[in-house]
Amino acid sequence: MIIDRARFLSDLHALRGFGASGVGKGVVRPAFSDADIMARFWLAERFEAAGLRVQIDPMGNVFGLAEGRSLLMGSHSDSQPEGGWLDGALGVIAALEVARAAREEGGPAISVVSFQDEEGRFGGLTGSSVWSGKTLLVNADTELDYDGISLKDARQGIAGRVTGWVDPAQFSGFVELHIEQGLTLDAAGEKIGVVTKIVGTREIPITFEGQQNHAGTTQMHLRRDAFQAIAEFNTLLNDRLRNVVTPMTVWTIGHVTLHPNASSIVPGKGMFTMQWRDGDTDRLIRMEKIVRDTAQEVADTRNMSVHFGPMWALEPVAMDMRLKAALEHGAKVAAPGSWRLMPSGALHDATNVARLMPVAMLFVPSIGGISHAFEEDTDEVDLVAGVEVLAQAVASLG
Amino acid sequence: MIIDRARFLSDLHALRGFGASGVGKGVVRPAFSDADIMARFWLAERFEAAGLRVQIDPMGNVFGLAEGRSLLMGSHSDSQPEGGWLDGALGVIAALEVARAAREEGGPAISVVSFQDEEGRFGGLTGSSVWSGKTLLVNADTELDYDGISLKDARQGIAGRVTGWVDPAQFSGFVELHIEQGLTLDAAGEKIGVVTKIVGTREIPITFEGQQNHAGTTQMHLRRDAFQAIAEFNTLLNDRLRNVVTPMTVWTIGHVTLHPNASSIVPGKGMFTMQWRDGDTDRLIRMEKIVRDTAQEVADTRNMSVHFGPMWALEPVAMDMRLKAALEHGAKVAAPGSWRLMPSGALHDATNVARLMPVAMLFVPSIGGISHAFEEDTDEVDLVAGVEVLAQAVASLG
Repeated sequence: MIIDRARFLSDLHALRGFGASGVGKGVVRPAFSDADIMARFWLAERFEAAGLRVQIDPMGNVFGLAEGRSLLMGSHSDSQPEGGWLDGALGVIAALEVARAAREEGGPAISVVSFQDEEGRFGGLTGSSVWSGKTLLVNADTELDYDGISLKDARQGIAGRVTGWVDPAQFSGFVELHIEQGLTLDAAGEKIGVVTKIVGTREIPITFEGQQNHAGTTQMHLRRDAFQAIAEFNTLLNDRLRNVVTPMTVWTIGHVTLHPNASSIVPGKGMFTMQWRDGDTDRLIRMEKIVRDTAQEVADTRNMSVHFGPMWALEPVAMDMRLKAALEHGAKVAAPGSWRLMPSGALHDATNVARLMPVAMLFVPSIGGISHAFEEDTDEVDLVAGVEVLAQAVASLG
Repeated sequence: MIIDRARFLSDLHALRGFGASGVGKGVVRPAFSDADIMARFWLAERFEAAGLRVQIDPMGNVFGLAEGRSLLMGSHSDSQPEGGWLDGALGVIAALEVARAAREEGGPAISVVSFQDEEGRFGGLTGSSVWSGKTLLVNADTELDYDGISLKDARQGIAGRVTGWVDPAQFSGFVELHIEQGLTLDAAGEKIGVVTKIVGTREIPITFEGQQNHAGTTQMHLRRDAFQAIAEFNTLLNDRLRNVVTPMTVWTIGHVTLHPNASSIVPGKGMFTMQWRDGDTDRLIRMEKIVRDTAQEVADTRNMSVHFGPMWALEPVAMDMRLKAALEHGAKVAAPGSWRLMPSGALHDATNVARLMPVAMLFVPSIGGISHAFEEDTDEVDLVAGVEVLAQAVASLG
């Protein structure tokens, strides 16, 4: 099964044109932005041109369906607020190319999907979460982005093109190609990573509430300062997690909002998001207890209150043995001596799709390990290698 | 000289009506908001009704001028983003009432002022800073609020009513009544504080820059996380300042902005404002060195960069002996046994006006020491006591 490298790369660069940031190959294409919606309609045209039947579901997930039972391949085409050109997009265009090559050469039936809002404008993996039944659309609809816009309102942007839900029973499995978004392959000079498992994630919005007051007249010992509470929580947490984590465990405070956020006011309220990831569910649970206990302790000692929002949780997911074996075979043929087995530190739509069918994933290197940033990139030789491994794997499944 | 308590309180409550927040007596009337501009035009009418000649300068400072040489009294009528009903407003309406009483009873000539943007939407004490010549209007005009709106654009809201600059040479001095905004008088059950000096302030915008990256795939030891840098800076600073400060010294991080501020992204950039206040210039300078050295050290150890914005500085200001003596006399007569001499931990317009003429200040209690918050309040008996002390002081100067 031979793939058309030029056609694949040309489509990949065309997709980058929707929301191109003007900074390097950077892309600004968050879920349901004008650029994202235009990109989805363009993808629908490309799917049709490839002889696939287009379906757009109420979540904005765009499918290109083969006849009868098929293997589903793809990823997502929405981006981070400031994202790269490959995160998600690579997996969608690679799937399209493999589907085209398979049709042209009588290979197995391949369907293609671009899931919506993988990057979490409205929670995280929202499109695959709703499609897989993990989340009810009516519940997801109440999610607000940081500007207070609801998913329900954002979905109006595609309402006119919705054709209905896609029945997962027609798919034999799901395979997703993605950039690694870490340093492992790039540092080792390898081309391919066959994923063994996807790590689990926990995320809790936490709010400290104290007393808003004047920054000139409120003596230090009388303050109930929400920023000081967040900073102390962070210091204690880093110290207490050391005994629990492995070198692969990560935890992040990436979103902080102080109220009223003015330089002359002791902040009375501080909201932040605590996120942590690990391959072991027991460790995720032990970390949760440390997070909650430490926040409560900081609030108590400062005579402040702490509120924990709903925790968002995804368990670690093992890859399907048969599909993983096919990807290993593809790697041996198309990238001999330049591939490895590895876990995925990042979340992917495959995490949710695993609720419905067997799943497997493939990685190509990220230069410098950089992702979720305009600088994200991968050598085009490695991009093509990824598609060739997919093609070999699919052929071996046929 | 007898003041009209009912007239004074009625005007004070009327001013609260502009931007009333609906939460207690709270007010939302930031500089050049619609509520602030409407309040300034209403004040102009009240000044005229009191027989004063109204002048509005290009900064939006509103004056009510007596004939010939006069004593200037007043404060500001803009509020914090979420402010109380007395911060600034009390000093303006009290001055208006004393000016009215003086005219009615042949007392000394009193002029009244409401300065603009004391609360610092565009820097801090902006109106008195420009009027006093501390800042050039062309420079102040380039200041942006947190929404990126410039002072130059905001000033368009009053452009039609500007009459020109007011010559400070006509004023013999400036007296400002203000709420304490601290706990000292309220805790002691006293009615009046005669201010001895206003503490100095330093404020620097600081930015840490590291590497924006994926929160799932970037191992902890590889991160250059801007939030972690801010939190570590805060911890080290609190520790290092202990040896330098007095119980009256304060320092605050009230404004923090992470970029891109998303829960799944290691923040590559973190901007915050570091502010500190003290009555002693040498101590302010020693604290500045600790702030800069600590931020630089954190950036160096984390392989990140740190950028210091322009430092905003106000030196401590001593009150004029003659005006202060008059206020002490007024306190002895109108609040016997219930007043004290004290420093001001808060900045006030008097700080800038002191560049042009002798200044003095008077405090009334803040219930619970709370200010820069909707809960800010003062017993009306104490508000009236403040005006009576002013009237006695002014009469003694006559």
